[in-house]
Amino acid sequence: MRIVIIGGVAGGMSAATRLRRLSEETEIIVLEKGPYVSFANCGLPYHLSGEIVAREELMVQTPEQLRTRFRIDVRPESEVTKIDPVQKEIHYQYQEETRTLTYDKLLLATGAKAIQPAIPGLREAANIYTLRSINDMDQILLKMTTSQQALVVGGGFIGLEAAENLRKAGKDVTLVEAGPHVLPNLDVEMARFVEEEMRKHGIKVLLNRAVTEFETNKAILSDGESIPFDLTVFSIGVQPDTQLAAAAGLQLGLRNSIKVNEFYQTSQADIYAVGDAISVTNQINGAESLISLASPANRQGRQVADVMMGLPRKNRGSIGTSIVRVFDLAAGSTGLNEGQLQQAGQRYQAIHITGKHHAGYFPGAQPLTLKLLFDPENGEIFGAQAVGNSGVDKRIDILATAIKGHLTVADLPELELSYAPPFGSAKDPVNMAGYAALNLMEGFSESLTPLALKEAQAAGALLIDVRNPLEIAEAGAIPEAKNIPLDQLRDHLSELPLDQPLIVSCHSGQRSYLAERILRNHGFSHVKNLDGAFILYQILFPNEVLK
Amino acid sequence: MRIVIIGGVAGGMSAATRLRRLSEETEIIVLEKGPYVSFANCGLPYHLSGEIVAREELMVQTPEQLRTRFRIDVRPESEVTKIDPVQKEIHYQYQEETRTLTYDKLLLATGAKAIQPAIPGLREAANIYTLRSINDMDQILLKMTTSQQALVVGGGFIGLEAAENLRKAGKDVTLVEAGPHVLPNLDVEMARFVEEEMRKHGIKVLLNRAVTEFETNKAILSDGESIPFDLTVFSIGVQPDTQLAAAAGLQLGLRNSIKVNEFYQTSQADIYAVGDAISVTNQINGAESLISLASPANRQGRQVADVMMGLPRKNRGSIGTSIVRVFDLAAGSTGLNEGQLQQAGQRYQAIHITGKHHAGYFPGAQPLTLKLLFDPENGEIFGAQAVGNSGVDKRIDILATAIKGHLTVADLPELELSYAPPFGSAKDPVNMAGYAALNLMEGFSESLTPLALKEAQAAGALLIDVRNPLEIAEAGAIPEAKNIPLDQLRDHLSELPLDQPLIVSCHSGQRSYLAERILRNHGFSHVKNLDGAFILYQILFPNEVLK
Repeated sequence: MRIVIIGGVAGGMSAATRLRRLSEETEIIVLEKGPYVSFANCGLPYHLSGEIVAREELMVQTPEQLRTRFRIDVRPESEVTKIDPVQKEIHYQYQEETRTLTYDKLLLATGAKAIQPAIPGLREAANIYTLRSINDMDQILLKMTTSQQALVVGGGFIGLEAAENLRKAGKDVTLVEAGPHVLPNLDVEMARFVEEEMRKHGIKVLLNRAVTEFETNKAILSDGESIPFDLTVFSIGVQPDTQLAAAAGLQLGLRNSIKVNEFYQTSQADIYAVGDAISVTNQINGAESLISLASPANRQGRQVADVMMGLPRKNRGSIGTSIVRVFDLAAGSTGLNEGQLQQAGQRYQAIHITGKHHAGYFPGAQPLTLKLLFDPENGEIFGAQAVGNSGVDKRIDILATAIKGHLTVADLPELELSYAPPFGSAKDPVNMAGYAALNLMEGFSESLTPLALKEAQAAGALLIDVRNPLEIAEAGAIPEAKNIPLDQLRDHLSELPLDQPLIVSCHSGQRSYLAERILRNHGFSHVKNLDGAFILYQILFPNEVLK
Repeated sequence: MRIVIIGGVAGGMSAATRLRRLSEETEIIVLEKGPYVSFANCGLPYHLSGEIVAREELMVQTPEQLRTRFRIDVRPESEVTKIDPVQKEIHYQYQEETRTLTYDKLLLATGAKAIQPAIPGLREAANIYTLRSINDMDQILLKMTTSQQALVVGGGFIGLEAAENLRKAGKDVTLVEAGPHVLPNLDVEMARFVEEEMRKHGIKVLLNRAVTEFETNKAILSDGESIPFDLTVFSIGVQPDTQLAAAAGLQLGLRNSIKVNEFYQTSQADIYAVGDAISVTNQINGAESLISLASPANRQGRQVADVMMGLPRKNRGSIGTSIVRVFDLAAGSTGLNEGQLQQAGQRYQAIHITGKHHAGYFPGAQPLTLKLLFDPENGEIFGAQAVGNSGVDKRIDILATAIKGHLTVADLPELELSYAPPFGSAKDPVNMAGYAALNLMEGFSESLTPLALKEAQAAGALLIDVRNPLEIAEAGAIPEAKNIPLDQLRDHLSELPLDQPLIVSCHSGQRSYLAERILRNHGFSHVKNLDGAFILYQILFPNEVLK
């Protein structure tokens, strides 16, 4: 049997190596249009700054190694031009030559490609690059030797990593993002922490502005501003690379992705597809989704090999878990975000808690802000986001596992997580998020989002800030807040109006929750806790804070 | 209503504060025999070396703070001498005075106490300490100023942390453990990594030897060796501190723990108990267990407060998750270990995999060895253990969450864990452990433990080491192994006996798995992969390795 695989990186190469482990007889041919297979595309940005020192580190496996070890016939620089599903034949270009190859089974692992909209000047410019391949990286590195002003267009993972590494390489970096915040997987308030971190490290971050035109060494933005550059990394997103599939008559789905069934079969017999080129079922809401990430691509590649060899595997779908490091900060997410829930009309509740990444009394404890999205009726977990200097990956992975295990928020306090002072707390932030969610569901607390605060105040609610005056003097205050330090609250109850809505706030939301409980237990019936408290307020409205 | 709580640390204080949040009227009295409540007992060892610099850091909350903020009547240095369940009355000693207190509900959070066996000289010695309280720590610190030779008896968490911190404080440290390895939560081969780390940092580790007698500044071991010391930390384990409960006629369980029902109720009406003093149901096998850890104690404390106030909570049991840092190494575990499974007569399979804690091509990748214990018939996960320099806590927490969610090994490859080069790999070690387990369950691989190797070789099996000669020259070889580098294996098939059992090994087990697949696919039917490969072999049998 001959199996041909188009695309030799994550999904394609996982399939090829698993196929070989399952069978020594199968002929396995991998066609890759680029010169490299099995390279570390997630590592490319880090070589720009030299954080990944050696270029060779990025070559996880060479065609020669794959031939020797796996007897895989790897053919780089072989661009497929046509698939004939009837003749089960492929035409591909190798150097000047067009070659033909028949297959018994075909796997499309063509991945995604950079979105390149019709911006005037974009295609003509010689100093605008994408960052998807070793070749892209080499070109950027070469250009960096003569460039000082770097522009990054697009605030997704690659854009942020490119911006960070260009900055670390000493360049002046401007990041332009057309949307209201960087990192579309996060919601705005969580993305704000990332933007702040970038600005702290000298990157100019421009939001809500698209590039409308590229002139020589100059980008014109939608607000008329012009940004000079020597070098631009253009990374506004990716889309499934499926022209071949379309031309072969395969059924396409969302955003021209390849439609596959749960066995990764396309609409044509004996043609399979995996990775960024396909759409998948989101496991949380069942929606057809594009989840262009390395982890699902690798899993799908291995699974489709099993399917091709007759093993009982199927694609159960994905939830989408991701993380990015931006200087000293990590920002991660899993599952659905608030924007997606709103769009789907899903009932949900969001909470934010800030805790320490390990025991507060142990040196080096860093704050970690965790957002949890859940169904307030049954506690189903829809998604989570986290930002912080340390331990973000761990909390996101715990919650990603909880989602896969169909745990509810009521199960989060039950999680027994590894605790010793250098690693965690007896009550981990994940446990605390569970407690906070349960308090809302069971009516022990009610929360108000910072976005709704001003309106509530305008409607007559009184905001009580239970921090200490010293903290307020240092960090600043939310406008029109009455300061009653928590430890004095019980002595001032008689001064508070019983019939007026009250909102309580502190630094992280923990003390104000206790204040809320005190007030409720003393008969104040309209009390809400400001979700995320001052930490969230100040990141959302830095210019409103009174100092 | 008056609720009295005996014990003011983890479980007791969690209950007290939650009670206050639920009710402002309830009178809450906490009796603590020591001078401090709510202190960081897990942090005590780290102050010996000064890693936790300030002693005050260990006082999480003072009695005054608890009185002010929570209106909790905290009474330190109040040792309860008697509980009268009929009169619902407590007698306690405060200074020279015996006081009496009635209760409506009583919570016993008396914790555990250090096991102090009848070793001649132990009780008489002035320079032998336990390390359970601030006072213990203060005494050790004082003694350290005039001591150079430190002896630690017992290789559990406290013993190891004490040993590390005494060593970091510049002392000569000997650790004596009566069992065959340190850390009883781990199995022997995983504990060996920890022992090696301790020895690397200059600690003398003596196993399989108990102290039979203490003389002045000298401990006599069971093998006759005598260990001089200026200072001894004695920490061979803990047992539930339940004399009060016993004297009050409460029903006791395993090792004199307090028996409670799922609502934390003891055999006496209105007396509840939580924390290290009670036995719990192990959620994995349903057995009555002692799980003396901070995380369950805190959870139980909060839950019992809810129960007392009429909320629908119950103790679902525990699985037991723990971690310890020993110099640069972390060692963690969750669920049951191999010893416990054997003891229970449970059918199980163990696998070991070694991967990198984040992408191998990203600088700073550290090896992480993960052990997974599961049911080979249905894939149920029984437990996991991990050792490594980084990322141990994360993998243990993921697997602890997986166990709570009743995920099986077939679900582990499905976990979507946060991947970017600084944080993980597209296929995380947890995913890889799932794949490896499935390969065994589905018959694609068969494994042999290093412990069974010699016997298999003696019975005629041929061991094939597929590492490269250079690796073998550097790291050493397993005796009587034939070296065929993986990439040359297919060229040497004709030299191998088709009917003789073959065992394959490499460095971590990944390449040898591929070798196993090649051999099986070429008709060699008796092939086994050496579980954990050379890494596990050398840690178990360092003196057998041929160099």
